[in-house]
Amino acid sequence: MKPCIFCEIAAGRAAADHVLDAGAVIAFLDARPVFKGHVLVLPRAHVETLPDLPAAELEPLFASVQRVARAAEAALGADGTFVAVNNRVSQSVPHLHVHVVPRKKGDGLRGFFWPRQAYAPGEAAEIAKRLSSSLV
Amino acid sequence: MKPCIFCEIAAGRAAADHVLDAGAVIAFLDARPVFKGHVLVLPRAHVETLPDLPAAELEPLFASVQRVARAAEAALGADGTFVAVNNRVSQSVPHLHVHVVPRKKGDGLRGFFWPRQAYAPGEAAEIAKRLSSSLV
Repeated sequence: MKPCIFCEIAAGRAAADHVLDAGAVIAFLDARPVFKGHVLVLPRAHVETLPDLPAAELEPLFASVQRVARAAEAALGADGTFVAVNNRVSQSVPHLHVHVVPRKKGDGLRGFFWPRQAYAPGEAAEIAKRLSSSLV
Repeated sequence: MKPCIFCEIAAGRAAADHVLDAGAVIAFLDARPVFKGHVLVLPRAHVETLPDLPAAELEPLFASVQRVARAAEAALGADGTFVAVNNRVSQSVPHLHVHVVPRKKGDGLRGFFWPRQAYAPGEAAEIAKRLSSSLV
C-alpha cells in the first residue's frame, strides 16, 4: 500500500510550501490552487474525513483555519475566503484537509460554483424529517 | 435596516425546514439546494464570518456539522459530503453558515467545481512565506 502523501508531508519526508505548524495541525499550499494562496489545513495524525475527526480535535483544526483565513486577507489582500472540505466524494487525498481559498469580489467563481435545484411541494419538509430522525 | 433572515429563522419568526437544534447551533435545509438534503448549520447568535466566531464556539458548531454529515449518509444514502463556508465573497446571508451538501459518486459536480491554476517557479514558496508571516 502506498503511504499517505499528507502523512509524508507531515513527517517531513515529502516537500510542501508550509504555512503553519500548530503541533497537531499543519497547513501548506495546495500545489494546484483554485486561486494562488490556496491553503490546505489538516490534522497531523491521519484521519480520513471530517465526520471521523474526534470532537476534541475540532477546535484546534478550525482555530488554525481561522488563522489562515485571516492571513489570506492580511497577506494577500483577499476580500474573503472559501473554506471547504470534500468528504469521500471529490476527495483527492483520503486524509482530512480543509481548503482555505482566497477570494476577491468579481473573481468569477460565483456563477458555476453553486448550481441550484428546487424542491417539489412537501419534499423539503420530508427530507428535513428524514435527516433530523437520523441524527446520532 | 432589514433584520437578518437567519436570526429571524433562529428566533422562530421566519419559517424553515429544521433539521437540528443543539441550543447554540441550529440547522435547516437550504431552500435552493445544490443537491436535495443540502443543510445549513449555523450559530444561533449572529456572527458574520467563520474568522469572527469565538474559538469556544468552534467545537459546538463543527460537532453539529459532523452529525449532519453522518445523517446525510444514513438518511439520504449519500456517498460523502461537501462541507463549505463562504466568508464575505459569495456569502448570500451575512450570518455565518456551514453548507453540508450530500454528494454521490458521479453526481457531476467535479469538473467545474475545482478550476485549478499553476504557480510560476518560486512563486509558491514566496506566497507561503507571506501567509505564514501574517499569521496572528
